[in-house]
Amino acid sequence: MYAAVIYGPHDVRYEQRADPVIQAPTDAIVRTVAACVCGSDLWRYRGIADVPEPTPIGHEYVGVVEEVGRAVATVRVGDLVVGGFRTSDNTCAVCRAGMQTNCPHGTGYDGCQAELIRVQNADGTLVAAPGTPDDALIPSILALSDVMCTGWHAAISAGVTRGSTVAVVGDGAVGLCGVLASRELGAQRIIAMSRHPDRQAVARSFGATDVVVERGDEGAARVLDLTGGLGADAVLECVGTVDSVTQALQSARAGGMVGWVGVPHVREIPQQHMFWRNVGLRGGPAPVRAYLDDLLGRVLDGRIEPGKVFDLTLPLRDVAEAYAAMDERRAIKTLLTP
Amino acid sequence: MYAAVIYGPHDVRYEQRADPVIQAPTDAIVRTVAACVCGSDLWRYRGIADVPEPTPIGHEYVGVVEEVGRAVATVRVGDLVVGGFRTSDNTCAVCRAGMQTNCPHGTGYDGCQAELIRVQNADGTLVAAPGTPDDALIPSILALSDVMCTGWHAAISAGVTRGSTVAVVGDGAVGLCGVLASRELGAQRIIAMSRHPDRQAVARSFGATDVVVERGDEGAARVLDLTGGLGADAVLECVGTVDSVTQALQSARAGGMVGWVGVPHVREIPQQHMFWRNVGLRGGPAPVRAYLDDLLGRVLDGRIEPGKVFDLTLPLRDVAEAYAAMDERRAIKTLLTP
Repeated sequence: MYAAVIYGPHDVRYEQRADPVIQAPTDAIVRTVAACVCGSDLWRYRGIADVPEPTPIGHEYVGVVEEVGRAVATVRVGDLVVGGFRTSDNTCAVCRAGMQTNCPHGTGYDGCQAELIRVQNADGTLVAAPGTPDDALIPSILALSDVMCTGWHAAISAGVTRGSTVAVVGDGAVGLCGVLASRELGAQRIIAMSRHPDRQAVARSFGATDVVVERGDEGAARVLDLTGGLGADAVLECVGTVDSVTQALQSARAGGMVGWVGVPHVREIPQQHMFWRNVGLRGGPAPVRAYLDDLLGRVLDGRIEPGKVFDLTLPLRDVAEAYAAMDERRAIKTLLTP
Repeated sequence: MYAAVIYGPHDVRYEQRADPVIQAPTDAIVRTVAACVCGSDLWRYRGIADVPEPTPIGHEYVGVVEEVGRAVATVRVGDLVVGGFRTSDNTCAVCRAGMQTNCPHGTGYDGCQAELIRVQNADGTLVAAPGTPDDALIPSILALSDVMCTGWHAAISAGVTRGSTVAVVGDGAVGLCGVLASRELGAQRIIAMSRHPDRQAVARSFGATDVVVERGDEGAARVLDLTGGLGADAVLECVGTVDSVTQALQSARAGGMVGWVGVPHVREIPQQHMFWRNVGLRGGPAPVRAYLDDLLGRVLDGRIEPGKVFDLTLPLRDVAEAYAAMDERRAIKTLLTP
């Protein structure tokens, strides 16, 4: 098969690799229907994170089951399946508590920007779509593999509920999905923080009621202005820098909650924006498996279309260009097809 | 009247001051029935916080209304009342959101370790006990002024609910009240972290099912041992040091929550114990007024007896000894009577 391998900064190659094989009875092999590039993949692409050796890359996929190990019971050859960015057994106490990302038996992938993918813990990870979903739904199903469930986790972590006033920091695919999640959870007002007209447009179509273009202290001040001086009940932090975490904490009302899912580039949290204002902070890597059944249902029903975050589609062999387009902000998120 | 005034480290004096008077139509003057010394008062007593000039001290009280301003409608002369450690209007949007400590019109006190106390925002702060409560209930009513509501806030912030497994870091009066709050909220298992036999005994009487004497990494490891390697659903942080916050975060299960009420001696929170484990942190100064009606009812019904945290009672004139006893850990908490 062919697959993407990152060699170092700005060096992603599409090259031949050995086909993955079943190694454990709980494995499945999935033939990719669509994959994509994650904002977090750009860390290594930009040289922020090290690439000690050439490494297969990618952790988002939708595909068709090609083969299953003998212990796999819930998906069958031919099923169209989606799984989260980490695998999980979905049976241990951690998974039963709804935190499948932290499953002690969980694993990553040996690259999902590939024609074939080995999925460990197949029963605990994959969810099959019933029947044969329309091709038009593929981007939205693919979005469930990470960004839509991550935006959902931000909203759940921030306690978004019917009537909430929400502010969303970050207008990447995750932030946009956070807007959509907030709408689905019944938020009354959703303030998207974005300075890019194309992303503002997606945010509006996902349910944003207000757009704030300012950032940092000015952005937080604008959220206070829009909320009668109070701040938002719930703030979704979808970036992960010190500045964005600070902006999120400052945008919350006293007693409010920040749901953070932006992979943190920050070692320590500035507590002066938390304790004295009774502002909380909760979140982390999204337990995709906990949300997948619900959100797949919403996609298949046509209630949500998170696939709108893909504004560029390329063949998998052009994966290098997919990275370049996102790195240079020519695309919000790139979908790849074999 | 006579009142306690702090002059500097280890220098609290009981001296004559002018009687407080009604200054605003929303004020009340309360004649103290009981007051007490707070762990946070010890900051200045120990020289950790500055005392730039002689300052009246104390913020916990139960008393009888002596006089009210013309706008006060909910309490009357002769009522036995309790109020929280900050006043609040209890009508603004912040108060309506249940965060009365953060009321923009809130105030502190000009010293409550005093024979008479001026209470601003009387209607939004004071709650009157119906009838004439038995003298034996006074310590428990007094505990509502801060420590019991603060322990309750820790438990609420940590999301303690029926069936929760809870760990409580800190065995001062607040931590002990956190144990009691967890029991009242239906926790199934309550692990008190304490190395003092007298405090362990109070914790057990308040509902602790387990006691852990280890601290720091060892303490957190012991909580994991006791919870099948998972960690606690909810952890109450009732100290406020870097070590105790870290211990609390480490004691939570993946997806768990730390409720923090220990006034933080920490500027930054070590995030490595939060994001990747999906552990949240929420809390701050307790909105006493939000909890007062409920908890006063539980005291009057005899359901809870938070007054057990007082293990020393002294006349107000011996306030210096009250501080010394707590500073030297001869007392958990000292009650003062005029």
